[in-house]
Amino acid sequence: MSAIPESFLKKTAELSAEITQPFPRSRKVYIQGSRPDIRVGMREISQAKTNASFGAEVNPPIPVYDTSGPFTDPEIEIDLTKGIPDVRSTWIEERGDSEFLDGPSSTYGRERQNDPALAHLRFEHIRTPRKAKPGKNVTQMHYARQGLITPEMEYIAIRENNHLQEMRNDPAYKKLLRQHPGEDYGANIPDIITPEFVRDEVASGRAIIPCNINHPELEPMIIGRNFRVKINTNIGNSAVTSSIAEEVEKMAWSARWGGDTLMDLSTGKNIHETREWILRNSPMPIGTVPIYQALEKVNGKAEDLTWEMFRDTLIEQAEQGVDYFTIHAGVRLKYVPLTAERLTGIVSRGGSIMAKWCLAHHEESFLYTHFEEICEIMKTYDVAFSLGDGLRPGCLADANDAAQFGELETLGELTKIAWEHDVQVMIEGPGHVPMQMIKENMDKELEDCFEAPFYTLGPLVTDIAPGYDHITSGIGAAQIGWYGTAMLCYVTPKEHLGLPNKEDVRVGIITYKIAAHAADLAKGFPGVQVRDNAMSKARFEFRWEDQFNLGFDPDRAREYHDETLPKDSAKVAHFCSMCGPHFCSMKITQDVRDYAEKLGVSEIEALKKGMQEKSVEFVETGAEIYKKA
Amino acid sequence: MSAIPESFLKKTAELSAEITQPFPRSRKVYIQGSRPDIRVGMREISQAKTNASFGAEVNPPIPVYDTSGPFTDPEIEIDLTKGIPDVRSTWIEERGDSEFLDGPSSTYGRERQNDPALAHLRFEHIRTPRKAKPGKNVTQMHYARQGLITPEMEYIAIRENNHLQEMRNDPAYKKLLRQHPGEDYGANIPDIITPEFVRDEVASGRAIIPCNINHPELEPMIIGRNFRVKINTNIGNSAVTSSIAEEVEKMAWSARWGGDTLMDLSTGKNIHETREWILRNSPMPIGTVPIYQALEKVNGKAEDLTWEMFRDTLIEQAEQGVDYFTIHAGVRLKYVPLTAERLTGIVSRGGSIMAKWCLAHHEESFLYTHFEEICEIMKTYDVAFSLGDGLRPGCLADANDAAQFGELETLGELTKIAWEHDVQVMIEGPGHVPMQMIKENMDKELEDCFEAPFYTLGPLVTDIAPGYDHITSGIGAAQIGWYGTAMLCYVTPKEHLGLPNKEDVRVGIITYKIAAHAADLAKGFPGVQVRDNAMSKARFEFRWEDQFNLGFDPDRAREYHDETLPKDSAKVAHFCSMCGPHFCSMKITQDVRDYAEKLGVSEIEALKKGMQEKSVEFVETGAEIYKKA
Repeated sequence: MSAIPESFLKKTAELSAEITQPFPRSRKVYIQGSRPDIRVGMREISQAKTNASFGAEVNPPIPVYDTSGPFTDPEIEIDLTKGIPDVRSTWIEERGDSEFLDGPSSTYGRERQNDPALAHLRFEHIRTPRKAKPGKNVTQMHYARQGLITPEMEYIAIRENNHLQEMRNDPAYKKLLRQHPGEDYGANIPDIITPEFVRDEVASGRAIIPCNINHPELEPMIIGRNFRVKINTNIGNSAVTSSIAEEVEKMAWSARWGGDTLMDLSTGKNIHETREWILRNSPMPIGTVPIYQALEKVNGKAEDLTWEMFRDTLIEQAEQGVDYFTIHAGVRLKYVPLTAERLTGIVSRGGSIMAKWCLAHHEESFLYTHFEEICEIMKTYDVAFSLGDGLRPGCLADANDAAQFGELETLGELTKIAWEHDVQVMIEGPGHVPMQMIKENMDKELEDCFEAPFYTLGPLVTDIAPGYDHITSGIGAAQIGWYGTAMLCYVTPKEHLGLPNKEDVRVGIITYKIAAHAADLAKGFPGVQVRDNAMSKARFEFRWEDQFNLGFDPDRAREYHDETLPKDSAKVAHFCSMCGPHFCSMKITQDVRDYAEKLGVSEIEALKKGMQEKSVEFVETGAEIYKKA
Repeated sequence: MSAIPESFLKKTAELSAEITQPFPRSRKVYIQGSRPDIRVGMREISQAKTNASFGAEVNPPIPVYDTSGPFTDPEIEIDLTKGIPDVRSTWIEERGDSEFLDGPSSTYGRERQNDPALAHLRFEHIRTPRKAKPGKNVTQMHYARQGLITPEMEYIAIRENNHLQEMRNDPAYKKLLRQHPGEDYGANIPDIITPEFVRDEVASGRAIIPCNINHPELEPMIIGRNFRVKINTNIGNSAVTSSIAEEVEKMAWSARWGGDTLMDLSTGKNIHETREWILRNSPMPIGTVPIYQALEKVNGKAEDLTWEMFRDTLIEQAEQGVDYFTIHAGVRLKYVPLTAERLTGIVSRGGSIMAKWCLAHHEESFLYTHFEEICEIMKTYDVAFSLGDGLRPGCLADANDAAQFGELETLGELTKIAWEHDVQVMIEGPGHVPMQMIKENMDKELEDCFEAPFYTLGPLVTDIAPGYDHITSGIGAAQIGWYGTAMLCYVTPKEHLGLPNKEDVRVGIITYKIAAHAADLAKGFPGVQVRDNAMSKARFEFRWEDQFNLGFDPDRAREYHDETLPKDSAKVAHFCSMCGPHFCSMKITQDVRDYAEKLGVSEIEALKKGMQEKSVEFVETGAEIYKKA
């Protein structure tokens, strides 16, 4: 029995109110799959009618890929002390290849569960851990390679399509479906995502579905370069009772603004209990860096780390439901001295811990030497690898060096080993890289790691803007996302300076939503321009409320608008504060349209044709204009 | 005589205090050229010594390209009512090809000067306008094509080099001069910028030096893709007395944070007087869109605009000292109907004004038909063209269409005409463009406009983030800057929503400094990585104060740091709030260095060599690892 203090319960109730507030003019809709329990949640933003002066018309609702889970569904009562509803248990159960344990099988997990001193921190409804039956492999990759389409895969296909087929069949969306084709980097993205395509991408290792069988609350999502680009957010660092509520709040806050996965990087005292609260309330896959907790267990002395206690930590976390582990198994002894002449040495925490261990023992790390055993654990719960880039560059000067690319090769070797076990893998990438050197990172990753999904932090394209590193890294993130990175780890304005607060988390997430969406557009992912087009149409027609609501951050947009033109009447005004009525180009454009209408369609077509001919002619005659002028 | 109200004087004194505050640990230094009156100001950031635990060493001061002019020189007393010191009058006078007029030669200029009702608004020390002597051409392009190196050109060479030669000769900078080579887009940037190179780039039209002979206060700067990427900031919109002070404040604020040029987009009542105040106090070149003021003169009725009154406006502004004019002469009648089917039509204010005029008169605009006469005016004062992209796309859906590219071809034709008059030209570019279509914009501009410098707004790479459009556009700006855009027009967080306040201007500028600097790094512009390297070294050595001071925004960085670790002692702490002492990778890296030292250099070299061999071997054997694994 749990004994959660009143103060905590009160706090979580307040949190619920804040995080369950639906977005303005938005409602939760569900698309059902081939069976009633495949119900994919989306957000639908309703739009106002076009004003008569622009030719009155009804504007259809815009569906939005939604990461906020049950929090924004008013039909579902959120009680953080109970956890969110279960999505996947039936699917897992039906496969018949896993079984419940009596309780945690890790030594540490059992200790924590039985320690009465922790009762006030403990989540009340801990799930009984599940594990693969002896000899069974419960990974999505294993199923995919056997040709199976799991409910998770079908769920993902529906989710990625985001109502596209329905929009294509509805004339109301005709104008909004205009989209520029992607180029090379999106060449393998199909016109519509089918469950079969999801399966094939997972089978080939080009995509992963992080979904531990002990995290049935999660809404399945996929990480791979032929799908929407995803973003990861981070939380972490706390030790006292009250901060469990804060961490859960940060998690739900991340989900609200668009985080696709979340890494719990806590290094405090009660991270085991905190993690339980987070997992039981998270619709997003959760990742961790188990070596952080392992280091806590040996009081911060890296050289005291052992394979046995690390193994126990993996099992402890896997049985709680962590969906992917960052494992820095690529930090090999031979690479360590290569960092000595760097400007900033080793900047990855996990990387430096392992480097220190390697140096102290003068041997390869237990992560490398026991890699096959780690795979055995991973496939028993379906935990995915996020192979850590422990030797990533910490500044532009150190980018793309021998240490970084040496480690990348090792990560490729480890990928092949993991794949022999049908364990899912993604590869972590840098860091700090100037723009002209970003593509080399992507190209080498695809080659060295056999197209396993790339998961990068930024990269930051300059080092001289502390306080603005969400932007320095957002620039690099958009680019590498376009080139093929499957998931972007967000960076907040506090990077290099301090711990992010809620506002920083929001700004970091929106920045990365922008980068990921820009990459989706550049790759020509089908249907993603609908929301941009709806925004542009609303802009042209001065539908201010719709402009706010269609954006990534409706509250911020409204707040900025109201600073200059706070009156409600301004929100239906046919001009805005920037230009005023005389200079309104949108208004003048309407005159152009009226004029063009008078000209008649045939004349416009003739003009356009003439333009295109002229354009071709120009290219053919080359520098002729130069000579004439 | 002027009669400036007390309240205004009091306000400007307050402003001066704010804008003359030097940056922390920074001082103004001057490099002298071939003559004593060529004195190029730079900012020098001093650094603390490296702490003994990292091997005590002295860290040299870092020179920074400085746009803040005399405002941050404590030796110069700033009095906004008097204007800033004169930099170029002697140079202009010495050339002997221009003469003073009795007073403004524009009708409007004379009226404003003689209207007693305006006395309280009028700048006290209006300069007597200067004009080319009959038959003379006073443009920098004209001089360059005659083989002359003007003091402006020499000034620019020193400024662009930013102490590079001196750093190369000083061993203290050895570590900091590490830089990754640029690739294709920076191929023509020389190892050091010479005055001859500046001249040749201006003569060819690949670069411009906006510097009206009536704006001797400006510190010469250059816009061209073989130089540092520049950023433009905008101010505008006010009508009452008190707001003149606000506009001057915004101008100085822009200069402080790094604006290279500034466009005064005012559309209010007293824009003539406001402009005078701005010009007399601006060390940056000033641009305008003269059609805005012309439209004011006809009470906002576009169809009433005439060539005669537009001509008078050009002369009025040229004699005040405006350095470049945006002229939307590419909006030809035949292109206008091509915008009718766009999602957002015409979004450029100037473009829509001209389109409306063309439609109303059903003929080509007077900007197009009188283009040669405009050139005659431009060369009489050395005003540069910024050929406006009146038909730029206002949303992703309209990007790279027939209207936009048609206009671009016309801008190319006009460029050739301007160049026949030795008038300097840059070309304005979009706008809203998804990432995969940005490069086409740059390529077409270089081809169609014969390599005239490109000057773009963003582009924004998605439409769905109102409130964050400094970021959506900063992503596109960094990219197009890398591809070869010479100047980036900044965008603030208020874009599409309202008018920016001071904080928005600051955030917009820093975002664009990031984009421009990232582009410089990517092109491999010599020496630009020194500041990044200094930052990285300071980061590695936990010199917090230096980290703040070396950044684009020292105040913001310090503020963010202090939110988590406010104590002064934390600023010398050898760890930070993110990881705490146990997890400090920087500390562990020091252990690695100690280890590597024990190994000895030869062993490290052997390891490195081994790595490289391995890398080659890997490429050669191709998928062998794949087979083995």
